[in-house]
Amino acid sequence: MSTDDERPGLHTYQIVLRHIEAGILSGEHRVGDQLPTERDLAAELSVSRSAVREAMRVLQTQGLITSSTGPGRGTRIAPARGDALARLFQLHLSLSTAADADLTETRIALERSSAALAAQRADSEALQRLEELVEAMNDVEAIDDFNSLDTEMHVLIARISGAELTADLTVGLREAVRERIRASSKALPDWTAHRDQLIDEHRQIVAAITGRDPAAAANLVEHHIRRAYRTLGIAS
Amino acid sequence: MSTDDERPGLHTYQIVLRHIEAGILSGEHRVGDQLPTERDLAAELSVSRSAVREAMRVLQTQGLITSSTGPGRGTRIAPARGDALARLFQLHLSLSTAADADLTETRIALERSSAALAAQRADSEALQRLEELVEAMNDVEAIDDFNSLDTEMHVLIARISGAELTADLTVGLREAVRERIRASSKALPDWTAHRDQLIDEHRQIVAAITGRDPAAAANLVEHHIRRAYRTLGIAS
Repeated sequence: MSTDDERPGLHTYQIVLRHIEAGILSGEHRVGDQLPTERDLAAELSVSRSAVREAMRVLQTQGLITSSTGPGRGTRIAPARGDALARLFQLHLSLSTAADADLTETRIALERSSAALAAQRADSEALQRLEELVEAMNDVEAIDDFNSLDTEMHVLIARISGAELTADLTVGLREAVRERIRASSKALPDWTAHRDQLIDEHRQIVAAITGRDPAAAANLVEHHIRRAYRTLGIAS
Repeated sequence: MSTDDERPGLHTYQIVLRHIEAGILSGEHRVGDQLPTERDLAAELSVSRSAVREAMRVLQTQGLITSSTGPGRGTRIAPARGDALARLFQLHLSLSTAADADLTETRIALERSSAALAAQRADSEALQRLEELVEAMNDVEAIDDFNSLDTEMHVLIARISGAELTADLTVGLREAVRERIRASSKALPDWTAHRDQLIDEHRQIVAAITGRDPAAAANLVEHHIRRAYRTLGIAS
């Protein structure tokens, strides 16, 4: 028999966890609200202080609460942190049984949206950073360095789009395939040809964003991801 | 001064957590692998057993490990569970400072993709379930009941698409706005007119999926979400 843990029913830390989570989901706990002390929570829920502490560790790791020292110290509900979500998303993707084709479709859906929004919203400073990044790629030969700039480009477009949630998910997805892309790149018979094609594709995407053409930017990103994944053997 | 917790540096549970997470991200820990015992991990990392237990609580809540009793008992790396990811995603969205417009764009990106894939992949059984759900909506007047069927429709299309990751994210996003949609629906001057329009939009989406027209299905879903959110005052 396999259960979620060694005995049936909820662990006491889960009782605490569900109590706080229910407060967040119902809107009762809002960002900045102070939680009761460990002692008070333990008494209120009739659980041990170590159970409360275990639940707090979970919430803290998930980026949902923060503790602080100094005046007004205590445990508070935190504004959702994209990096905590992106990291958890990345861990899940690492253990995902989802097919590569599935991850590819999700990545394309999000990055099409980011590229189209970037074409509508990029200011002159953002456009300049995009140009600089394409030029930097042009100056780099080594796979690892190139791969870092490539990741940076996709994340930058997502950030420029102003759609923070899409950007956080894009970071998680892009980081999750980073090792795959790196290893497949190293196994390519002709890295230089692939690299030159990637630069050309990125240049076209940046041109569409600069030219304020959302539809072209979205289509070029989709074409780029599908073409690169096919070449690398990551998805058909 | 505000820090992540009451003293500088990592908590000991975080040392354990990062150790296991690094193993997952590097591919060293794969699904089904057994982790060392609490005692062995504590000795290996020179931390207390309670620190190890706290880290395990975090990993378990994130759906990354499971513990089991019986033969072969112990703590193992789990296949990524969509419900754990969807729940965490939903908690984050509840505390998100992201603008409504941001959430709307992410939802549209994901649901356009789901609808297009559903139009390519739905089998006859799936098409029948979609038809039945539209008919069920037609039989329901009460806002809460209608709202549940509406959520079910969007989740069903995502599941039919076969893109599990997109579906899990869709569930999180849809659940996160459920209360907003419910409250706004109740505040509408003419709920019946809005309801009839929703049914008509869903019927058109189902027709496009049945007609194997991915582009139409994607466009109809986007039009539907934007129109509904405008009517409900959730996004412009």
